[in-house]
Amino acid sequence: MSADPTEALPFATIDHHRALRQGYPEVVYAPGKTAEQIVAIAERLAAHGEGFLVTRADAERRAAVAARFPASEVDASARTAYLAPDRPAPPGQGTILIVTAGTSDGSVADEAAVTARALGNTVARAHDVGVAGLHRILEQGSALRSASVVIVVAGMDGALPSVVGGLVAVPVIAVPTSVGYGASFGGVAALLAMLNSCAAGVTVVNVDNGFGAAVAASRITHWYAQKT
Amino acid sequence: MSADPTEALPFATIDHHRALRQGYPEVVYAPGKTAEQIVAIAERLAAHGEGFLVTRADAERRAAVAARFPASEVDASARTAYLAPDRPAPPGQGTILIVTAGTSDGSVADEAAVTARALGNTVARAHDVGVAGLHRILEQGSALRSASVVIVVAGMDGALPSVVGGLVAVPVIAVPTSVGYGASFGGVAALLAMLNSCAAGVTVVNVDNGFGAAVAASRITHWYAQKT
Amino acid sequence: MSADPTEALPFATIDHHRALRQGYPEVVYAPGKTAEQIVAIAERLAAHGEGFLVTRADAERRAAVAARFPASEVDASARTAYLAPDRPAPPGQGTILIVTAGTSDGSVADEAAVTARALGNTVARAHDVGVAGLHRILEQGSALRSASVVIVVAGMDGALPSVVGGLVAVPVIAVPTSVGYGASFGGVAALLAMLNSCAAGVTVVNVDNGFGAAVAASRITHWYAQKT
Amino acid sequence: MSADPTEALPFATIDHHRALRQGYPEVVYAPGKTAEQIVAIAERLAAHGEGFLVTRADAERRAAVAARFPASEVDASARTAYLAPDRPAPPGQGTILIVTAGTSDGSVADEAAVTARALGNTVARAHDVGVAGLHRILEQGSALRSASVVIVVAGMDGALPSVVGGLVAVPVIAVPTSVGYGASFGGVAALLAMLNSCAAGVTVVNVDNGFGAAVAASRITHWYAQKT
Amino acid sequence: MSADPTEALPFATIDHHRALRQGYPEVVYAPGKTAEQIVAIAERLAAHGEGFLVTRADAERRAAVAARFPASEVDASARTAYLAPDRPAPPGQGTILIVTAGTSDGSVADEAAVTARALGNTVARAHDVGVAGLHRILEQGSALRSASVVIVVAGMDGALPSVVGGLVAVPVIAVPTSVGYGASFGGVAALLAMLNSCAAGVTVVNVDNGFGAAVAASRITHWYAQKT
Amino acid sequence: MSADPTEALPFATIDHHRALRQGYPEVVYAPGKTAEQIVAIAERLAAHGEGFLVTRADAERRAAVAARFPASEVDASARTAYLAPDRPAPPGQGTILIVTAGTSDGSVADEAAVTARALGNTVARAHDVGVAGLHRILEQGSALRSASVVIVVAGMDGALPSVVGGLVAVPVIAVPTSVGYGASFGGVAALLAMLNSCAAGVTVVNVDNGFGAAVAASRITHWYAQKT
Amino acid sequence: MSADPTEALPFATIDHHRALRQGYPEVVYAPGKTAEQIVAIAERLAAHGEGFLVTRADAERRAAVAARFPASEVDASARTAYLAPDRPAPPGQGTILIVTAGTSDGSVADEAAVTARALGNTVARAHDVGVAGLHRILEQGSALRSASVVIVVAGMDGALPSVVGGLVAVPVIAVPTSVGYGASFGGVAALLAMLNSCAAGVTVVNVDNGFGAAVAASRITHWYAQKT
Amino acid sequence: MSADPTEALPFATIDHHRALRQGYPEVVYAPGKTAEQIVAIAERLAAHGEGFLVTRADAERRAAVAARFPASEVDASARTAYLAPDRPAPPGQGTILIVTAGTSDGSVADEAAVTARALGNTVARAHDVGVAGLHRILEQGSALRSASVVIVVAGMDGALPSVVGGLVAVPVIAVPTSVGYGASFGGVAALLAMLNSCAAGVTVVNVDNGFGAAVAASRITHWYAQKT
Repeated sequence: MSADPTEALPFATIDHHRALRQGYPEVVYAPGKTAEQIVAIAERLAAHGEGFLVTRADAERRAAVAARFPASEVDASARTAYLAPDRPAPPGQGTILIVTAGTSDGSVADEAAVTARALGNTVARAHDVGVAGLHRILEQGSALRSASVVIVVAGMDGALPSVVGGLVAVPVIAVPTSVGYGASFGGVAALLAMLNSCAAGVTVVNVDNGFGAAVAASRITHWYAQKT
Repeated sequence: MSADPTEALPFATIDHHRALRQGYPEVVYAPGKTAEQIVAIAERLAAHGEGFLVTRADAERRAAVAARFPASEVDASARTAYLAPDRPAPPGQGTILIVTAGTSDGSVADEAAVTARALGNTVARAHDVGVAGLHRILEQGSALRSASVVIVVAGMDGALPSVVGGLVAVPVIAVPTSVGYGASFGGVAALLAMLNSCAAGVTVVNVDNGFGAAVAASRITHWYAQKT
Repeated sequence: MSADPTEALPFATIDHHRALRQGYPEVVYAPGKTAEQIVAIAERLAAHGEGFLVTRADAERRAAVAARFPASEVDASARTAYLAPDRPAPPGQGTILIVTAGTSDGSVADEAAVTARALGNTVARAHDVGVAGLHRILEQGSALRSASVVIVVAGMDGALPSVVGGLVAVPVIAVPTSVGYGASFGGVAALLAMLNSCAAGVTVVNVDNGFGAAVAASRITHWYAQKT
Repeated sequence: MSADPTEALPFATIDHHRALRQGYPEVVYAPGKTAEQIVAIAERLAAHGEGFLVTRADAERRAAVAARFPASEVDASARTAYLAPDRPAPPGQGTILIVTAGTSDGSVADEAAVTARALGNTVARAHDVGVAGLHRILEQGSALRSASVVIVVAGMDGALPSVVGGLVAVPVIAVPTSVGYGASFGGVAALLAMLNSCAAGVTVVNVDNGFGAAVAASRITHWYAQKT
Repeated sequence: MSADPTEALPFATIDHHRALRQGYPEVVYAPGKTAEQIVAIAERLAAHGEGFLVTRADAERRAAVAARFPASEVDASARTAYLAPDRPAPPGQGTILIVTAGTSDGSVADEAAVTARALGNTVARAHDVGVAGLHRILEQGSALRSASVVIVVAGMDGALPSVVGGLVAVPVIAVPTSVGYGASFGGVAALLAMLNSCAAGVTVVNVDNGFGAAVAASRITHWYAQKT
Repeated sequence: MSADPTEALPFATIDHHRALRQGYPEVVYAPGKTAEQIVAIAERLAAHGEGFLVTRADAERRAAVAARFPASEVDASARTAYLAPDRPAPPGQGTILIVTAGTSDGSVADEAAVTARALGNTVARAHDVGVAGLHRILEQGSALRSASVVIVVAGMDGALPSVVGGLVAVPVIAVPTSVGYGASFGGVAALLAMLNSCAAGVTVVNVDNGFGAAVAASRITHWYAQKT
Repeated sequence: MSADPTEALPFATIDHHRALRQGYPEVVYAPGKTAEQIVAIAERLAAHGEGFLVTRADAERRAAVAARFPASEVDASARTAYLAPDRPAPPGQGTILIVTAGTSDGSVADEAAVTARALGNTVARAHDVGVAGLHRILEQGSALRSASVVIVVAGMDGALPSVVGGLVAVPVIAVPTSVGYGASFGGVAALLAMLNSCAAGVTVVNVDNGFGAAVAASRITHWYAQKT
Repeated sequence: MSADPTEALPFATIDHHRALRQGYPEVVYAPGKTAEQIVAIAERLAAHGEGFLVTRADAERRAAVAARFPASEVDASARTAYLAPDRPAPPGQGTILIVTAGTSDGSVADEAAVTARALGNTVARAHDVGVAGLHRILEQGSALRSASVVIVVAGMDGALPSVVGGLVAVPVIAVPTSVGYGASFGGVAALLAMLNSCAAGVTVVNVDNGFGAAVAASRITHWYAQKT
C-alpha cells in the first residue's frame, strides 16, 4: 500500500481534487452549526485565501460572519454569507438564467444566484412569470434566447418548467419550492409535477435546493468553458 | 311518525327527487357487476323509459348491453353504453369545453363528453394542447371564448389547468389522469399539482373521474338554465 | 415581433386582462411578506383606486394595514384586510351559501365569505351542521333551496359535502380543513374523502383554501350574471 | 418449571383456550394455501367435530371444500366455506345490524354476515343506504332501533359511519372498503375518514376486513350474553 | 312541512337526543377556542345543570375554567376540565380496563379514564405493561379477567393490543399514540400495526384519541346496562 | 390579431419549432396506442422523411413496426423502434457516458442509449458498477475522464450517482429505476436518495425515465455544439 | 497509477475479495433474467467449482436449473436453487434460529434458512408462534436459549420481534413480510412496527428479504467463528 | 397458579432478568418527563447502585441531573446523562466502529457512542467519510479492519452503509438521520435507501436511533464475549 493512498487510486486523475477546486469557495452548510463554529471554519478557510460560501444561514449566523469578515457579502434573502477567494473562480460559459414563478420563490432563486456567481458564472433573472399569466413568461423572449442554462424555481403546481422546457432548447433545471396552500406537502406537489414534466429533458433537484441547481448549472457552463 | 317519512323531511322540497331526475338517464357504475347484472338493471330502467348510462364498462359488458339494446350508443374509448330516456334531458346553458393535454387523456375526456351530452349539454372539444407546446392552447382562443365551463383533462405534470385558468374567467374543472412515467403515482402527481394550481378558482375532481367532472359542469349549466 | 407582444397574442381577446379585473380588488398573499412590504404594495394599489384583499395576514400584518388604511376592513378570523376599490365589483348572480361542519371550520369559511363579498357576491351562512347530528343540516332547507352555489367547509371525516351534494342540484364546492385528531394528516383525510364523494359532481379545492373556493364560486355566479 | 408450562401461566385462567372456543368454528385464511392444503386442514378439524370457516377463498378453493364436505355452506359473494361444528356456538345477545353504503360493499358485508352467524349471532341487513340519498338511511329507523351493534361497511368517502354514529347510541364498527375512483388508494381514503369520524365512539377495522368487524361485534354480543 | 321538523324525522325515535344525553356532560373540544370562549360555553351549560367535559385543554384554558368553576375537576395529564351534571350519568355495566404500554402513553390513557368516568363508568388501570417485558402484562391476569371492555393504549410498535386481544374474549379497543423515535410518523406506525393486529376482533380509534376510545367503550357498557 | 398567430408570438424566435426539430426523429410514446395506431403515425412521419423513435413498445408493437419498416432498428431491451430521418440529427459535442449499478438497470440504460444516439450523440457505456463493489466504478477512470455528461442509472439504494458525482466535474443526471426488494416502492427509494445526493449538482429525472435523461443530456451536448 | 488498480487501493487488505468468498456460493437474483440466462451464469460458476444460490426463482427457472444441475437442491417454498461449491463454506458459530409468526411467513423464512445453510450455518426453526397466542412463543424457551442469533419473520402487525427481543439477549433481526389484510401496504405496516420496536436493539431488513436477514446473521456468526 | 407467576413461566430461565441486567445502567428516555421526574427516577436507581443512562435529554434536563449527581457524565451533543453503576458492565468483545457521513450526523453518532460505552464496549470513531469524497472512507482501512461491528450513521442519500457493507465482512448496522434538504422527509429518504442497500446483510434501525444501534451492536459483542 502506498504511503499516500489517494495517489494510487484509479480515479486520482479524475478528481483533481485540488486543481478543480482552485478558485472555488468552500461551501459551509449552516444548519446544525453554531455561529462560533461557522466563524471558526470560515477563519480557517480565509487564512488560506480559499474563500467560503455559507448557506442556509439565519440572521444571527450571517451577522457573526459579517462582523468577523467585513469584506464578505451577506444576502438576507438568499441566507448566504460569501467571501471571494484570493484567486477568482474560472468563468463559466454563457449566462445562467434564473426564473421564478412567484414572489415567494425569491429566496430560493436568490440562493441559486449567489451560488452561481460565486462559482464564476454570469447570472440573469426573470421574476414572477408564473403560468397563470402567460404573457409574463412570453415577454421574456430575449432573456430565454440568451441563456445557456435555465433554472426554473416554482412552488405550488410546479407548472413553469414544463412551459419553459417547451420554449427553449438549452438545459432546464427545475427547483421545486415549499410554497403553497394545504396539500402542497412542503413542495412535494411541485416536485412531483416537475418529475412528470410533459416537456422532455427537464431535470430536477430537491425542494428549495437553489444551491444544488446552481452547482448543476455550473457543471454545465464550466464543461462548456473547459472545452472551448 | 308519518306514514311516508320522506314526505315530512325538512329537505323534502329541496331534493325533488323525481322531478329533478326527470329526463336524466340513470347511471350504472359497471365495475363489480357482471354483464348479466348490468343488463338486468338496464332492462328495469328501460322498461320505465328512463334511459341509462353505464360507465367504466369493458368490452364484454358493452357488448352485452349493445346486443340487448340495439338503440343504445356504445363508446369504446369512453367505456360507456348509453340509452336515451324517452323524455330528453333538459338542456344546459351554453357550451362545455373539454380540453386534453395529451393523447393519453382521451379516454377520460371521452367519458366526460358522453356524460355531459347525456345530461343535456352541448359539448366542444380541444385535443392535445399540452403546455410544452404553448402555441397549441393559444390557438384555441375562439373555443375558450365561447365556453361556459371548461373541463381540463391532464396527466403527468397537471400543468394545463393553471394555464387555462389564467386565460378564461369562466369556471374551470380539472381532471387529473393516471398517465405518466414512474413517480406519477397513478395520477396523484397531477392531482396535487391541480389542487395547488397557481390560477385561483380552479376546482378538482378525482383521478380519471371524467364522469364526475361532467356532472359538476352540468350542475353549473343547468342551474343557470333554470334561472333564465 | 411586435413592439408590445401581448397585443398580438392569440388569446389577447380572451383575457381582457384590464377589463375583466375592473372592479375587483387585487389579492395580496401575506405569508412570506413583511408588514412593510404589504403596506407598500397596498399603497401602490390604493393610489390607483384598485382596492386590495390581503389574505393569510396575521395580527401584526393586519394591524399595519389597518393603521395605514383606516377605511379598510380587517377580519381577525378570516385573517384578511380588505379595501374596496373605487369602482365596485360587478355583482354575481344569486347567493353563495357557505356551510361549515364544525366550529373549527369557521376561520376558513370566513376567508371564503370575505373573498366572495369582495368579488361582488351575496353570501349566506350556515354553521355547525356536521353530519353526526343530521337534524342540523336538514333544518337548513330554506337556505339550501335559495343557493346558487354551495361552498361546504369541513374537516375531520369530510363527510358533509356528500350529504349536501345529495340534497341540492346546484354546484357544490368542497373545502377540506386541517382540523382533526391524529391521523387527519393536516386535512388530507378530509381532502381524500371529498375527492371520493359518493355524491356525483362535487368538486374540491385545496386544504384550508377558502379563498380559492370563493373565487371558484364567483366564476360561476359571474358567468351567470354575464349571460343574463 | 412445571411439566406443562401453559398450566402455570398467570393468564391460564383468562384464556380458557379450550372452553372459550367450544362451539366456535376454527378459522382458515385461504390466501397462500392450496385447495389441497385447505381441504386437509378442514378434514383434521371436521374429524374432531369442530367445524371450520374458510375465508377469502376463491372459486377453486370453495369448490374443493364443497366437494369434500357436502354439508358445508359456500358463499360466493362472501368468499367463504363454512361447516358448522357439532356443538353449536353459544348465542350472542341481540342483533348485529350490517349496513352498506353501496352495492360494491356487498361482498365485504357478506363476509361479516357469514362470520357473525358462524359465531352464534343473529344478523340483520340494510343495503345501499349511502349518504348521498339521505332518505335511505333515515328509512332504516326500525332496524337501527333494534340493533345491539351496528357494522357499517362503506368505501369511497367513508361518510356513512359518521351519520350512523349520530343516529344510534349502541356500538358502531366501521369497515372501509377498497371501492372507489382514482385517489381512493384502495380504501385508505375511507379508512382515514372513518378514523376521523365526527361521531364520537366509532371504532374502525382494516380495509375490507368484514371478518374482523364480525369478530369484534361478536366479542360485544357474547360478553353481553355471558353477563345475563 | 311540520313546524318542528325534527319531530317528523323517521329517526326521531332513535336519537332521543335529549333523553339519551340526560346525565351526560356536554363535551367541549378546546383547541381553536380561547379561554374566554370556553368559559362562556361552560357557563351556558352549567346554568342548565348539564355539566361539561373540556378536552385537549392546555394549562391556561384549564386554569380559566377552574377559576370560574371551583367545583370542576381539572386533570393536567389528561388535559381535561370536568364539571359533573346535576343528574349523574347512568352507570355503565362492569369495568373498563385501560392499559398502557409505556409511561409516555399515560396522558392519552388519562384522557380515556376521565372521559369514561364522566360517562358513568367504573375504570381500572394497568400501567407500563409493554410487550418487551412480557411478565408485566402476564401479571395482570386478575384485572384482565374482571374487565368488560379493555382499552389498550400504545405507541411505538403498537404490539400490545395483539397480545391483549389473545388473552381476553371481551371487546378490545386499541388507541395508537404519537410516541416514538424517527419513523413512527406521529403514531401512524402504531396505528397501522393495530389495524393489522393478528388478534381477531380488535378495533381501533385515531391516534391519541383517548376520548373516542372511552366513548366507544361506554357505548358498549351502556347498551348492556340498558338491556338488563 | 395577425392571421397566423404563432408568427407573432414573442417567443416565436425562440422555439424555431421547425428549424430546431430538423434532423431529429419524432418521438411516439407507445403505451395506450394500438400497434395499428403506432404504425399509422409512423407512416405519416416516414412519408415526410422525418424518422421516428417509438418508446415503451412491447414485443407486439415492435414487431408491427419492424414488419412495416424493415429499415427500422428495433431494440428489445430498450423497448424501442427507431427509423432514422432522411437528414441526420446534428451531432452533439463529446460523449455521453451511461453507467448502471446492476444488471437489472440495463433496460432503462438501453432506452437512454438508443435515445441519445437517435438525437445525434456519441454514447459510451459502463455496466454493473454498483457501490457495494467499489473497485468496479474506480476501474472506470478512463471512461469517466472522457465523458461530457454522465447518466447514472441505479435502483435499490440509488447510491451510485453520489459516488459518481464526487468523481467527476461534468454534469451528472441520475435515473432511478424500479428495481428492488420490498420497500423500494417501485423506485421511489432510489428517487429520494438521488434527490438527497450528498454530491452537489446531481440532477434527477423520473423513475425509469431513460428517455428523459437522454434528452436532458442531449440538451447539454447540443447547446455546446451550437456555440462552437 | 498502478497496473492493477485494486492492488493499490487502501482497502485492498480489507475486502480480501477472493479469500473472503472462498467456499461461499455466488448469489444470482432471478427476477429480470430468463431461465436461459440463469443457467448460463450457473454453468460459468459451476465450471469453476464455485457453486451458486439462485434466489426469487419461479417454477420455470427452478426447473431449468434442476434439469441442468441434477446435484442442485431446489426449494419451491424458498424459491431457491442451490449448488454447493466444491469447497464447503466455513462454518458459522452457533445456531441461527428462524421463527415465524404465521403460516404465510413460511416462504420468506425458508429463503432465510436456505441462504443461512448455504453460507455454512446451523439453522433451527420455530413456526407459527404469533403473539395472539402467547403460549406458543413461550413454549420455545429451549430453542430461544440455544440461539446465537434470532431471525424473526412476521407480517400483519409485526409484533413478534418486540416480544422475542424482550425474551433473549442475543442479536435479533426482524424481517417484515408482505402478508396482511387491507392497509398492511404490502408489509409496510409490519416494517414500521419493527423499526419502532419497544425492545431495544432489534434491527430490521427490507420487506420479504429473508435472504438479507440470513446474510446479516451470517456476518455475525462468521466474525465470531473467525475470532475463536 | 403459583404464588409468584414469573417463576413458573417457561421463559423464566431465558430472560434472567436480574442476572442479565447486572452491571448495565437502567435507561431513562427523557422526552415527556419533567426534569424533576427524571431526577426522581435517577435517585431511585442510584440508591441501589444501578446507575442510569438518560437519553434525549435537553439542556435543562441534563443540567438538573448534573446538579444532583456530580459524578454523572453529561454529553451535550449526545443529549445524554450517564451515571456508571457500582458494578461495571461486562465487557463486549472487540471494537464497535461508528462512522458518520457528514458533520450533521455527529449528534446521533455520539448517542450511539455514549450508549455503547455505557454497555461495556470499546468504541472507535471515523468522521465525515461521506461517499461524495470516496478517498475519505478508503483511508479508513485500518479502522475498518479492526472493527467487530460497524455502525454507519448517515442522512441525505443514505449511501454510506452500502459502500461500507461492501468493504467489510463483519456486521453493519445502518442508522438513518433526519438530516437533509427538502424531500428527505425527516430521514425517510435515507431510511429507504438503507433498507434497499445493494450490499447484502446490512441491517437498519429507526431514524436518529443511535441508542438502538448501540444496543444492537452490544447484543453482538456480548454474545461473542459470552461464548469465548
